[in-house]
Amino acid sequence: MPNKDTGHSTGHLIIGGCDTLDLAMRFGTPLHVLDEMRIRSACRAYRQAASAHFGPLARVVYASKALCTTAVLRIVASEGLGVDVVSGGELHTALCARVRPADIVFHGNNKTPRELAEALSAGVGRIVVDNEEELTRLASLCAEHGTETDILLRIKPGVSAHTHEYVRTGAIDSKFGVALETGEAERLLIRAASVPGIRLRGIHCHIGSQIFGPDSFVEAARIMTGFMADLSERDGILLTELNLGGGYGVRYVDEDTPDAPEDVFRPVAASIREICENRAFPFPAICLEPGRAIVAEAGTTLYTVGSVKHIPGVRTYVAVDGGMFENPRYALYGSAYEIVRADDPNAVRTDPVTIAGKCCESGDLIQEHIPMPPLGTGDILAVMSTGAYHYSMASNYNRNARPAVVLCREGRAVEIVRRESYEDLVRNDCIPEGL
Amino acid sequence: MPNKDTGHSTGHLIIGGCDTLDLAMRFGTPLHVLDEMRIRSACRAYRQAASAHFGPLARVVYASKALCTTAVLRIVASEGLGVDVVSGGELHTALCARVRPADIVFHGNNKTPRELAEALSAGVGRIVVDNEEELTRLASLCAEHGTETDILLRIKPGVSAHTHEYVRTGAIDSKFGVALETGEAERLLIRAASVPGIRLRGIHCHIGSQIFGPDSFVEAARIMTGFMADLSERDGILLTELNLGGGYGVRYVDEDTPDAPEDVFRPVAASIREICENRAFPFPAICLEPGRAIVAEAGTTLYTVGSVKHIPGVRTYVAVDGGMFENPRYALYGSAYEIVRADDPNAVRTDPVTIAGKCCESGDLIQEHIPMPPLGTGDILAVMSTGAYHYSMASNYNRNARPAVVLCREGRAVEIVRRESYEDLVRNDCIPEGL
Repeated sequence: MPNKDTGHSTGHLIIGGCDTLDLAMRFGTPLHVLDEMRIRSACRAYRQAASAHFGPLARVVYASKALCTTAVLRIVASEGLGVDVVSGGELHTALCARVRPADIVFHGNNKTPRELAEALSAGVGRIVVDNEEELTRLASLCAEHGTETDILLRIKPGVSAHTHEYVRTGAIDSKFGVALETGEAERLLIRAASVPGIRLRGIHCHIGSQIFGPDSFVEAARIMTGFMADLSERDGILLTELNLGGGYGVRYVDEDTPDAPEDVFRPVAASIREICENRAFPFPAICLEPGRAIVAEAGTTLYTVGSVKHIPGVRTYVAVDGGMFENPRYALYGSAYEIVRADDPNAVRTDPVTIAGKCCESGDLIQEHIPMPPLGTGDILAVMSTGAYHYSMASNYNRNARPAVVLCREGRAVEIVRRESYEDLVRNDCIPEGL
Repeated sequence: MPNKDTGHSTGHLIIGGCDTLDLAMRFGTPLHVLDEMRIRSACRAYRQAASAHFGPLARVVYASKALCTTAVLRIVASEGLGVDVVSGGELHTALCARVRPADIVFHGNNKTPRELAEALSAGVGRIVVDNEEELTRLASLCAEHGTETDILLRIKPGVSAHTHEYVRTGAIDSKFGVALETGEAERLLIRAASVPGIRLRGIHCHIGSQIFGPDSFVEAARIMTGFMADLSERDGILLTELNLGGGYGVRYVDEDTPDAPEDVFRPVAASIREICENRAFPFPAICLEPGRAIVAEAGTTLYTVGSVKHIPGVRTYVAVDGGMFENPRYALYGSAYEIVRADDPNAVRTDPVTIAGKCCESGDLIQEHIPMPPLGTGDILAVMSTGAYHYSMASNYNRNARPAVVLCREGRAVEIVRRESYEDLVRNDCIPEGL
């Protein structure tokens, strides 16, 4: 089960040495709690596995869309990871976190001209070009800025990962990248190789999210490496970098069986090596982009139970002080979670309940029909594995303030994102004169 | 079709007398544009229909969760509407907009103790109590504050409106309110009638959202009025207020056929009157709470097309500079929209395309497979009927900044919500010392 340390004397859920009941009391709820050492351990596991299997040129780059705050980016950068950004806002955050621009990879299916210009000004390490229009735009910006830039091209390898439709991105019917099988990718690479200002370094693919088992990754790596060899043989274009994206599955519930990084990287490296040897193609510098896998299991959300509504013959609703404004994943994807009572995570689960949020919308649920121990007003609930795509997707729906994010390590807890205030909610509102 | 005025000489889409291409140029995109007079007209239509059919005691209260900004609340208050709030943040916004506290109705299935205390301190006109625990909590807060408060009780009338599961709230399996058919509502009202500090005024129901035709509303009104008569006869509790909530459908696409307020209110009033006459029960003060119906069709979102990706035999993706961070309704509900080219809203629609956002997620789509005229980079698209549940649900997913909201009237456009800056995105982030 994910992350369920308990205190020896209290039996309470402990995160990074901190008692979660104390955290709820001190910082209030809802509260996002991060275990610093779990983030660092995940960073180290990916880096070590990457070096071991892909050699010293391998890079691990954190996909910051999973959770992008200055402190989190500082942590991953201090662990030697690069940072993948997908917007000007993520780039700004990375720069605020003192991430070296050369370690930043800029992704996105529709970067705005402003974002491309900002990426050039910052001197990001790689821009991952999504399509021909973007290549054209980037080339003219390079000319304007009198600069050059290193790019990868995003490719759809045609691999259909077994995952939720919303987070499947490697097949031909995707808004991301250019297709391999139609010849579009090859034509665009030939063009990119000779555009002034553009230094074509390699190719990128990302086949989806929350993927288990190495097969889809091996298949994508095989196709991408083969394509690099094709390009070299057919077109004389020698690409030296292969960015394989991320998508490594994490554990939300017991049924999820995440793979150790080496169990994915080993077969992926073997398949790349085999192709390189067979076709006398130099083993490329590999880049890997875990996001969810770095932060998801390090995060826990704490809620206070407000009311328990037992509807005989129907179901029991347990209302908490958060909801879809800070965790929209159940409303969006029907995501599963493990939820425990923070004062006794191993309490015997008796009856199925539905955990509801406080938003004025019936779909504002955190989880339906999960067995829980008896619950009452004031109990603290802990929803596990909420480090990724929770705070980053949070809104102010119903003008609820976004929770604080607290970082815990060795019994010390510090706020790394302050809870929003009412003033924050109206900060950008204005009433024009005369209204 | 919704809101498609065009300029005489230009043929461009015009909103509140403003050329949308000028707005896009001046304020940037994505941009939420509101037509002030459409908001005012909707307010007036609901108020007039309410007085005409429910008499001088009828109140119309704007459900601010649809779109809660200080300027919007100023407008609806200046039209004589009250404001329905569902959180401390919405209450704060209403107070900043100088809405009279007595005109505020506080709803919510799980108001926090802090929110209840704030509602009491502000002196809101009505608190709509959701359940027994909340009644208990509110009563002890009243004692603590040495104050009294006027309440309604939220009832599930057992009406199943024909609408999306996520926005259906009147049936027994709902997190909102207490059930009629089990006797729970009656028991709680008997208790509420004698709790010190609590002035029980009436009952409230809300049967769902985006409902067309009067039948569900008539049914709910019939049940609620009958229940009020029952309470009077059986328990000697005379309630004088009936708050029927909102849920009036609006036009997103041509297939939607919204009802004029009077076409709903007339049969609702007739059914209430009939019961009152038959049972010699005094006609109650009726409160109506439109939200979406006040602002949805007054809003339009403008986007700039970034790239057009034609995948032969598959589909064409048109990427715009917004997406699920500022319009999550397609990802959440598969919502339908009418989308036009702002320079020529009546251009002949040729091929089906998919309008995609700029977020790094395959589900980040605005609309799929809708026929559009030819589109290219730089075109301005207008998505119609985005006044409700768009800005209010917006997030910073992918650290995209939330758009500006601009109010247009008689050719003048003013910003009522400033576009977020990069500084806003990191405002609450902090890097602890030593990290």
